[in-house]
Amino acid sequence: MRIAVLGVGLIGGSIGLAARAAGAEVVGFGRSSERLETARERGAIDLAARSLEDALRGSDACFCCGPVGLLPAQVQAALDAAGEACVVSDVGSTKAHVVGAIGDERFVGGHPVAGAETSGVENARADLFEGAAWYLTPSERSSGVLLERLHRLVRSFGAQPIALDAATHDRLLATVSHLPHVLANVLVAQAARTLAQEDEPLPRVGPSFRDATRVAGANTDIWTDIYVANREALAAEIDETVTRLRQVAASLRSADADSLSAWNDSAREDRRRLLEADLTGEDVAELRLTVPNRPGIVAQVALALGRADVNIVDLALAPASDNRSGAMTLWIAGDAQATRAAELIEDLGFPVQKP
Amino acid sequence: MRIAVLGVGLIGGSIGLAARAAGAEVVGFGRSSERLETARERGAIDLAARSLEDALRGSDACFCCGPVGLLPAQVQAALDAAGEACVVSDVGSTKAHVVGAIGDERFVGGHPVAGAETSGVENARADLFEGAAWYLTPSERSSGVLLERLHRLVRSFGAQPIALDAATHDRLLATVSHLPHVLANVLVAQAARTLAQEDEPLPRVGPSFRDATRVAGANTDIWTDIYVANREALAAEIDETVTRLRQVAASLRSADADSLSAWNDSAREDRRRLLEADLTGEDVAELRLTVPNRPGIVAQVALALGRADVNIVDLALAPASDNRSGAMTLWIAGDAQATRAAELIEDLGFPVQKP
Repeated sequence: MRIAVLGVGLIGGSIGLAARAAGAEVVGFGRSSERLETARERGAIDLAARSLEDALRGSDACFCCGPVGLLPAQVQAALDAAGEACVVSDVGSTKAHVVGAIGDERFVGGHPVAGAETSGVENARADLFEGAAWYLTPSERSSGVLLERLHRLVRSFGAQPIALDAATHDRLLATVSHLPHVLANVLVAQAARTLAQEDEPLPRVGPSFRDATRVAGANTDIWTDIYVANREALAAEIDETVTRLRQVAASLRSADADSLSAWNDSAREDRRRLLEADLTGEDVAELRLTVPNRPGIVAQVALALGRADVNIVDLALAPASDNRSGAMTLWIAGDAQATRAAELIEDLGFPVQKP
Repeated sequence: MRIAVLGVGLIGGSIGLAARAAGAEVVGFGRSSERLETARERGAIDLAARSLEDALRGSDACFCCGPVGLLPAQVQAALDAAGEACVVSDVGSTKAHVVGAIGDERFVGGHPVAGAETSGVENARADLFEGAAWYLTPSERSSGVLLERLHRLVRSFGAQPIALDAATHDRLLATVSHLPHVLANVLVAQAARTLAQEDEPLPRVGPSFRDATRVAGANTDIWTDIYVANREALAAEIDETVTRLRQVAASLRSADADSLSAWNDSAREDRRRLLEADLTGEDVAELRLTVPNRPGIVAQVALALGRADVNIVDLALAPASDNRSGAMTLWIAGDAQATRAAELIEDLGFPVQKP
């Protein structure tokens, strides 16, 4: 099995490492010969091709790992150079724009859900896809034989292939990934304007604003590409958000406490269900505590839990307004683990609250 | 100085502890005699009054710490029982609804920005307000002498009093606190519906959804009160969000990459400015790394930084889809500290990315 990887960053590099670990020969190609050399040194590719044609010659599969906006062109170029029995896929995080642009039976769109947090071949790992979802978005034209090969390949990387039509994929991602980015951007822009108007600094109101805006202004090159590529699905999601916000505004203006309470209760329930499903299949308990804001405190808490083999699913730390204490929130999977965690933390002298 | 505290939870109890530490005598009153007894045992009050009238008799100042929805009635009852030279204040997180309801010159609204993360007199601390902002919202009617007394009192608790008119206060809090809660609720509700329609589980897309919805479905009793009390200002903020979202949807539908890029860049800049001002006055650098998801890793990183006296301003940890590794993001104040932190973490074998 010979595999071509076009673009050797975090994802391309990790595909190379995983494919080589699974016994394939990997040939890389990209715009930067320096980056290709780094990829070779790190064992992500067996050899660096001098041209796209060289990379595709004799390959059984090809992964296009370019920027989202350039994918239709990159995929088409790969198909033009590929043999008749070569499956060509991509790894872009939106799918309809590329699937719609390509009519070739050798193409199957893909999207490994991994590695959003770092970039560069320096962070590539053979196990990056281990247990990760890897969406495959075949069209009606896609060759069954080649889809099967891609499916097996993705499984050999440790990923879990999930076949989905491109439009559904994009709608899902718009909801749970792209929309949160839009809301974060809108929220910071609005707060910045309000505070400037009032000539006030940001009131020190705890971690909610910080958490809600954590992804505001994420990498502009990457995100502009994603926004443009997924513009239809995302605009439809925004329309729905607008409808929902207007309902909330109407409940507020009529001081409808009952409907606001019910809405808030169901949001709590929705989040619990969504994130439980996401994480562990177990109930995730939330523990809150106030700790002194000094070096080593997080370590002290995490170590106490670590020694007792209690794993922290998620953790948030926010300094209080005096910058001398902080609110720490821990999410622990499983009631028994959570109870144990609370005991351990209280032994350290920090009272724990389970909301 | 004798101070009456009506309602001895986290805030009332902490006022009692702080006031006693500053030399005042504190009398408490509340609906639950059990909770009053706990407050007395913990030193938050000198004595528990049998009635509101007993609590106010001879008091120089009174803090009303009831639920937001009941504050106008509680403040009025306190004023009815208070002497002519007693300043009455409250600690509700919205102000116009109570300031507007009370015409007495002895009343000055207040809002200490502290303690949102825990509740109950068990978590009360004498230093809860140390360095915290404490908004005071006097009206034109408020007595200057009594405002000055309240101001001095709040300072004696270690807080930083900030005088603001009630409407401006509520608009600020609507923007940076109440609106993020509304958006989080809307986002989870919308995602839950989309996923149910598609019969799909939550795609495992990293921490953005988790962060953006962290406050979804916060305590319904408290938040319904806040929403109703601040309904006008919050509805106006929602209107503005709707306008902004429609602009984004329009840019998307016209595939206007330039305007999307500019919007995203300015969001990043807005967030940096807002949170820097909030935190330290220093640049806050963001470090990202991928770590194995096992007990003790957070501790290892935090300890290494702690030993070198590098303080973590904020920290987010999210498990990857395989639940075996996780993305860790650290925010460190000051370029030198951030560089040092990156070195220390890389010494542990985790490559660090500074976006």
